[in-house]
Amino acid sequence: MRSFAILLILALGLCWGQSSDESKPASSNVMGTEYPRVFADGRAAFRLKAPEAQKVQVDIMAKKYDMAKGEDGFWTATIPPQVAGFHYYRLVVDGVNINDPGSETYFGVGQQFSGIEIPEPGHVDYYETKSVPHGEVRQRRYWSATTQQWRRCFIYTPPDYDANQKARYPVFYLLHGFGEDERGWVTQGRLDNIMDNLIAEKKAVPMLVVVDTFVAAKPGEEPMVMRQDGRRPNIGGNIGETFREVLLKELIPMVDSTYRTLSDREHRAMAGLSWGGLTTYTIAPANLDKFAYIGGFSGSTGGFGRGNVDVKTMQNGVFADAETFNKKVKLLYLSIGSMEGPGAKNFHEALEKAGIKNVYFESPGTAHEWLTWRRSLNDFVPRLFQ
Amino acid sequence: MRSFAILLILALGLCWGQSSDESKPASSNVMGTEYPRVFADGRAAFRLKAPEAQKVQVDIMAKKYDMAKGEDGFWTATIPPQVAGFHYYRLVVDGVNINDPGSETYFGVGQQFSGIEIPEPGHVDYYETKSVPHGEVRQRRYWSATTQQWRRCFIYTPPDYDANQKARYPVFYLLHGFGEDERGWVTQGRLDNIMDNLIAEKKAVPMLVVVDTFVAAKPGEEPMVMRQDGRRPNIGGNIGETFREVLLKELIPMVDSTYRTLSDREHRAMAGLSWGGLTTYTIAPANLDKFAYIGGFSGSTGGFGRGNVDVKTMQNGVFADAETFNKKVKLLYLSIGSMEGPGAKNFHEALEKAGIKNVYFESPGTAHEWLTWRRSLNDFVPRLFQ
Repeated sequence: MRSFAILLILALGLCWGQSSDESKPASSNVMGTEYPRVFADGRAAFRLKAPEAQKVQVDIMAKKYDMAKGEDGFWTATIPPQVAGFHYYRLVVDGVNINDPGSETYFGVGQQFSGIEIPEPGHVDYYETKSVPHGEVRQRRYWSATTQQWRRCFIYTPPDYDANQKARYPVFYLLHGFGEDERGWVTQGRLDNIMDNLIAEKKAVPMLVVVDTFVAAKPGEEPMVMRQDGRRPNIGGNIGETFREVLLKELIPMVDSTYRTLSDREHRAMAGLSWGGLTTYTIAPANLDKFAYIGGFSGSTGGFGRGNVDVKTMQNGVFADAETFNKKVKLLYLSIGSMEGPGAKNFHEALEKAGIKNVYFESPGTAHEWLTWRRSLNDFVPRLFQ
Repeated sequence: MRSFAILLILALGLCWGQSSDESKPASSNVMGTEYPRVFADGRAAFRLKAPEAQKVQVDIMAKKYDMAKGEDGFWTATIPPQVAGFHYYRLVVDGVNINDPGSETYFGVGQQFSGIEIPEPGHVDYYETKSVPHGEVRQRRYWSATTQQWRRCFIYTPPDYDANQKARYPVFYLLHGFGEDERGWVTQGRLDNIMDNLIAEKKAVPMLVVVDTFVAAKPGEEPMVMRQDGRRPNIGGNIGETFREVLLKELIPMVDSTYRTLSDREHRAMAGLSWGGLTTYTIAPANLDKFAYIGGFSGSTGGFGRGNVDVKTMQNGVFADAETFNKKVKLLYLSIGSMEGPGAKNFHEALEKAGIKNVYFESPGTAHEWLTWRRSLNDFVPRLFQ
């Protein structure tokens, strides 16, 4: 009897040891919640109390994993190692997709979603809050006569912005992806940490970063939001058409009149991820009087793997005159996660062949996800304005 | 046959008319989602696709309403008129509490929750974004040696802050309630709109408002967060003890050295809602060298209906010498929603009886919820610094 008790204690000790020593709550959790948990090898453990449910699953990275019901009414699952990065996920209870109450929510895929941060191997901290001077992220509201709505953007100001009253700063306009909004870069993207760390290491020059949303619709137009019924908005060929008006006629003038900016084209950059990259590639090359630096992260005109593009004739011929383009554009940048397919690389090569100078960056081992875009930002920003 | 078809069309038309003419998507929804919807009389309609579920309910204002399943797999319910204001709510699917995918999420009750804004009757717009000069809400990170953690606060700066470089501003420190965090006043509270509108109408003087969280734990201490398993943290009698250190030794000095503030006690206010009000009433009266304006919204020391308090002896006797207290404190403020019970009013009367001057505000027809606290803020701020 005693030896059985000892065995039981040992067994319980091992179980407990496995969950506490090797795993820790995901950094993407609500403060103080124990689940979901992440392991050093990329595994993740989930838990949900659902005593009456018939079936509970974890839906992550386009796979569903069955959870097992315990006698305490908690369903649990430890899933195989996941690729590093920030993944949207959800739990499925009797066929209904739900948020995990243990996770913070992140606006993506057209709704507030659970997310889990699978840590990268090694000591990677360029997007963490470190002991360096910190800038601010400022919420700014402005009226859009184009859309007849109040809009909100976020503006990163560098650590010295308030102290150096005589300094003026270049401005970088940065867009999210389809189904997300202006909160994406601030929350999922860890924009301020990445900027603070790059500026502290003198890898980047101090600059403003304006994050706004390309969702912009005139009265009667359908906004470019992801519908929860799965319907995609019918925008015809007008990619970023209304947002272009907002950006050029309202946002940029508002920023230049409100903040101490350098307002010439050589001190203005634009980039975006996924649909925001496509939007950038649609607007910026056609408005080179406004922009000298252009980036698309997992989404430039040729980045969707739609086959070969004719660089000379695309987008009303903005790339037709390579020499003029190369003279004007200080940086044309494409990036992609290595798991996303060859679209961006194909476009990079087509641009090269057409004589258009560009920089191609591939994020190793990452998907169409925020870790690709954090790495892209971290690689892109040091190339600006210097 | 034809008449049947006409009848059917008429019937469909009526149904459609009822839902589109009389109701509209809640302003608290994810952009572009049709449900939940609100009616002018306070009713609300909910919808969820859950073809495999056995039972679906709406859980709002401490009541559960059954939803009915349609042949299309959607469950729907229109619930009776709700009191005006912002209500946290959730849907219950086969016994599991879930977020409504149509709603934005709001951090409260220890997790990301659905919320619905039931409009007030009449034209109430003091918390809406209006055509007035707008300030900013700035995210600021700072290191806490007390907790050994990076902390985040939000700082409202008034519209003229950047332009009037010679001006210095009074500072108002404002706290959320138990189960919420520093995001509450910015998101649910509509802080920036209320401040912008008050300043534009010259009802309030331009000031900074610092919203931080009272959740502050030294290594080994248990933070004051609402556990999802229902367990309340064991903080003993140490209400706000660690936060007091953070506030007095770290936050206030950081704000005064980073922003153009007026740093004497006569230009510093502190208030909070619910547990944040209790925290304020615990910290501020005991530190009158730091604060001259003190407020508790639905939560001051006597505000929890715990019966009579002995004003003369409570909190180490801070209220014992009424004459000195009244001379030092320019405003002692208590507010409550009329549906919350008599706790705050009892405390107000006990303070009066003890000779402690104070202002009591009752929000008509509202509960322990954000509409009470928006109204309280709107009533409190004009009383500051003038």
